[in-house]
Amino acid sequence: MKKSRTTSTACSRRPGRPSPSFLIAQVGAHAASQFAERLRKLKLVPQHSGILRILNSTPGITQQALAATLEMVPSRLVVLVDDMEQRGLIERRGNPEDRRRYALHVTEKGHSTLEAISRIAREHSQALLAGISEDEQQQLATLLQRIADQQGLTRGVHPGYRHSAHDGHGGFE
Amino acid sequence: MKKSRTTSTACSRRPGRPSPSFLIAQVGAHAASQFAERLRKLKLVPQHSGILRILNSTPGITQQALAATLEMVPSRLVVLVDDMEQRGLIERRGNPEDRRRYALHVTEKGHSTLEAISRIAREHSQALLAGISEDEQQQLATLLQRIADQQGLTRGVHPGYRHSAHDGHGGFE
Repeated sequence: MKKSRTTSTACSRRPGRPSPSFLIAQVGAHAASQFAERLRKLKLVPQHSGILRILNSTPGITQQALAATLEMVPSRLVVLVDDMEQRGLIERRGNPEDRRRYALHVTEKGHSTLEAISRIAREHSQALLAGISEDEQQQLATLLQRIADQQGLTRGVHPGYRHSAHDGHGGFE
Repeated sequence: MKKSRTTSTACSRRPGRPSPSFLIAQVGAHAASQFAERLRKLKLVPQHSGILRILNSTPGITQQALAATLEMVPSRLVVLVDDMEQRGLIERRGNPEDRRRYALHVTEKGHSTLEAISRIAREHSQALLAGISEDEQQQLATLLQRIADQQGLTRGVHPGYRHSAHDGHGGFE
């Protein structure tokens, strides 16, 4: 029953060997779900981690600008921001002239959560990349960054934000 | 407003440079959504393509064995198989002794759909990997295959099947 699962007529250029583009999607989905699994211990989802990282590097960013960076519908972002504010991870500092222009900041609790996320991200990386050397990891990162740049992806922003939850590998539409 | 988006304290080992594991997830999600976008023109989702490929390389596989290969809950697979049978892409050939042991086959229409998927997959690969050379694409594939093997991923099977639709980058629980 285990015979010839490696044959992949639809996605390979060489029979029996998955194509680079299939491997990117396959290992990428695995990496994302492994990281999400680890974050669950902190009761966080990957979006929380991504938003904390962006606010940490651009303190005071407005909700509007954050939605643009994440290519995310503002109404969906509001739900995430509300949740993170309620949990004390971030705070909105008022702009009395325009509610949409509230500036977002990481709280002290948010900073210690970021440190916990960093630890988890390191553990995740070590486990995920255990099969290749440090040099090979850098080689891989260089190639993937060149693809990301040529494809116009924003550095440090996972494209998952802009999609509906079932996009990519779900649903019938 | 565009300043220092590259700074990524949570996921990088070197400030300013996304980690290999983040890049794998980022480029992987982009690759999956670009491929799904192209498949939409054929009114297909990635699962259809994956199931057709597996049936093509293991004709007569039972629904039970297919569910095991995809690490998919059998009840969810039945929905996909029903849909694909109604569309004339695959057929169940009866096993009178046990309905669960129906053998699955690709129909003639399914084979021509597989050819259309192959063309789409080639176009997708060319567009996705336009930023790196042929040699670099092979280098990338070799590194990713080693990660996939070390992580115990099944060759040619996208891990998206076994997750609920919102896993990986969606939802709060």
